[in-house]
Amino acid sequence: MARITSVEVIDVRFPTSLTSDGSDAMNKDGDHSAAYVVLHTDDPSLSGYGFTFTIGRGNDLCVAAAKQRAVPLVGRDIDELCGNLGGIYRELQSDSQLRWLGPDKGVIHLALAAVMNAVWDLAARRAGVPLWRLLSDMSPEQLVEVADLRYLTDVLTPEQAVTLLERQEPGRKQRIAELEASGYPCYTTSAGWLGYSDAKLRRLCEEAVAAGYNHVKLKVGADLADDIRRCGIAREVLGPDGNLMIDANQVWDVPQAIEWVKALAEFDPLWIEEPTSPDDILGHAAIRKAVAPIGVASGEHGMNRVLFKQMFQAGALDYCQLDAARLGSVNEVLAVYLLAAWFDVPVCPHAGGVGLCELVQHLAIFDYAAVSGSLDRRVAEYVDHLHEHFVAPCVIRDGAYLLPDAPGYSAEMYMESLRTYRFPDGAYWASRADRDPLP
Amino acid sequence: MARITSVEVIDVRFPTSLTSDGSDAMNKDGDHSAAYVVLHTDDPSLSGYGFTFTIGRGNDLCVAAAKQRAVPLVGRDIDELCGNLGGIYRELQSDSQLRWLGPDKGVIHLALAAVMNAVWDLAARRAGVPLWRLLSDMSPEQLVEVADLRYLTDVLTPEQAVTLLERQEPGRKQRIAELEASGYPCYTTSAGWLGYSDAKLRRLCEEAVAAGYNHVKLKVGADLADDIRRCGIAREVLGPDGNLMIDANQVWDVPQAIEWVKALAEFDPLWIEEPTSPDDILGHAAIRKAVAPIGVASGEHGMNRVLFKQMFQAGALDYCQLDAARLGSVNEVLAVYLLAAWFDVPVCPHAGGVGLCELVQHLAIFDYAAVSGSLDRRVAEYVDHLHEHFVAPCVIRDGAYLLPDAPGYSAEMYMESLRTYRFPDGAYWASRADRDPLP
Repeated sequence: MARITSVEVIDVRFPTSLTSDGSDAMNKDGDHSAAYVVLHTDDPSLSGYGFTFTIGRGNDLCVAAAKQRAVPLVGRDIDELCGNLGGIYRELQSDSQLRWLGPDKGVIHLALAAVMNAVWDLAARRAGVPLWRLLSDMSPEQLVEVADLRYLTDVLTPEQAVTLLERQEPGRKQRIAELEASGYPCYTTSAGWLGYSDAKLRRLCEEAVAAGYNHVKLKVGADLADDIRRCGIAREVLGPDGNLMIDANQVWDVPQAIEWVKALAEFDPLWIEEPTSPDDILGHAAIRKAVAPIGVASGEHGMNRVLFKQMFQAGALDYCQLDAARLGSVNEVLAVYLLAAWFDVPVCPHAGGVGLCELVQHLAIFDYAAVSGSLDRRVAEYVDHLHEHFVAPCVIRDGAYLLPDAPGYSAEMYMESLRTYRFPDGAYWASRADRDPLP
Repeated sequence: MARITSVEVIDVRFPTSLTSDGSDAMNKDGDHSAAYVVLHTDDPSLSGYGFTFTIGRGNDLCVAAAKQRAVPLVGRDIDELCGNLGGIYRELQSDSQLRWLGPDKGVIHLALAAVMNAVWDLAARRAGVPLWRLLSDMSPEQLVEVADLRYLTDVLTPEQAVTLLERQEPGRKQRIAELEASGYPCYTTSAGWLGYSDAKLRRLCEEAVAAGYNHVKLKVGADLADDIRRCGIAREVLGPDGNLMIDANQVWDVPQAIEWVKALAEFDPLWIEEPTSPDDILGHAAIRKAVAPIGVASGEHGMNRVLFKQMFQAGALDYCQLDAARLGSVNEVLAVYLLAAWFDVPVCPHAGGVGLCELVQHLAIFDYAAVSGSLDRRVAEYVDHLHEHFVAPCVIRDGAYLLPDAPGYSAEMYMESLRTYRFPDGAYWASRADRDPLP
């Protein structure tokens, strides 16, 4: 009868801002970071790993919040915990004093994601399977029991969700076999960060095409003349049949978004991503109507399932880019996948940062196996940064995520990476004189 | 040439959960708390005070976030700061690394509110006037310059906002004179907390009517039979002409909200407050349509101006209950008041907690003087708790807030209160053995 004996939460920060990796129109100095959670147990062969992703300052807030969120886990019997993954989620989520600081958004929700991601990792490790398989082996009733459907029943009841999942049950095994052969299709953002020179942009686009990618994404929104020139380069390399996506990272008001996107229409972008405030459901709907047939994509800052419910109700999105570490872990991610399938909106999950690629591969595979049963218009994000810190990193071949086979949620980092990049006392930061002072 | 020399942020918690003050269907153990900010300057006669309101655990997160938010203030020239209250707000708000944890929501936004509330308090003290007068003395152009209109220009441009304010300029002085005679009308929530007995409820309703209140608010949503009995008591005491409001504190999904409110319709409530998730714009719109003529009120958890913009666009609210310590201080509050006036939705600001009454009186007075120019359907919340800790507490007479005349935003607490209720080392908490352990 193993129990959780303690919870460790570590502030890990990588100095990615030094190379402009991750730079965009809103985020100029992104030190990709993680509030990293380890659930220790009294079974020496079993731990759980999870995290949420941040970009530098403020990671300490997520670490402190995760410590608070995790308090009720200590001493829990692991069999009971893993047998009631809906119950423990709801218990942590409903802490009424922390709820006041949200609800279900911002720092306390990122922290819930970090902690519950570790619980899901633990559950998959205990079962000896990768997370995508743990989920794919659950019955429709079990999946709906763990999904967070609170505040969603006006559009999707638990009964409807069960029906939706039952519809996909017959083909699950065959679709998994398909993915085992070909992987899950992905696209690369590594080429298009705003801080890169034109020469570097061209070279990276060429490398992406050579590596088998059919989609390339560029950051836009800082300067229209630059955007026109950069989109021209990317379209030239991709040819007329490749897919070019553009991403404004929320820099525009609604009227400006419409005007700017129309000015880039000649490059035939597949989607405009985060054209305005991520909270602006009706704004996204207005932009979508104005810039069609260019699609509208958003979701990496989609704070919770209630936002996504309304995005779908309002017809605001062509592509849903949910984030595995901003939504409240698998419990809430599952709810958004169910909603998306119900409204027939493809989910192309956000990735990049620290370890998000490692997480989203599981979710995308599970979606195809059990929820949407479709690859149509679906492509998961991939960014080629920081994978070397993960014990079981994702593997890409010919523009597709290969199916992970190690037990868990692929979230474990190397001890050596933690020792080096722990903030502010890890070997790297302790040696850097110009690091940000803590207040 | 005075400067800000240091920023102090204090975790203050009052043990209000011991008496069920503040209890409702969602929040059962509300220890009313504040992340309290003091801006020290090298002018010994000048400091700035501000706070955000929380309910216990998690206040430490807001304190830590406020410390980060305030770093750029240290060393600033006070004249420059007070001459550019829009600029400093935008500078703090746009910290791209903290922005990632929102944007504009949750802990980092509460912290922005705490810090910028202190800056506004400082500005009013420096001018030697109460905040409502500082604002009422500003020109339409000055007000629009400090208001946070980002992401709002699809419905309200700066030019339109100036026009709206210009329309109310001629009557400003006269309306202020009116309020100086009669005060700003308010209602009391003190009677209706869910944890109170029927006898206490009846007594408090009777006391409220005797004190001149024409509105009483009850918490509902835990048990329908209880709600029917309690609403019956309140309506009996109020008589047919008094205004009864009910408040569910987000406990229902949309269909359940509609059903439950209809079951209480016989008591003729003026409004149902927070019937569902505060993020559910389209859900509020659906509820409003279904329960009319009962009004729908929400806003104390309204996370930012983008949410309110959409609430107004969707016709989701009869009453806007913005919160002075959840929105990003006066800068964002002002934007929501402008939007509300533009859409002709009355603002009845949320109060209670710690010191919210002290803040909202300034905002309501200013709204009447300079923005909406109307008292129609407007009544500010008042809760009779914790005012004894404030140096210049609000004063109520005959169901109205009297106009505050002390310079500032009425946010300063007594040193003795801080020494007693500072968490966890203040005299009260240090002596209490059962206080929550910090993780």
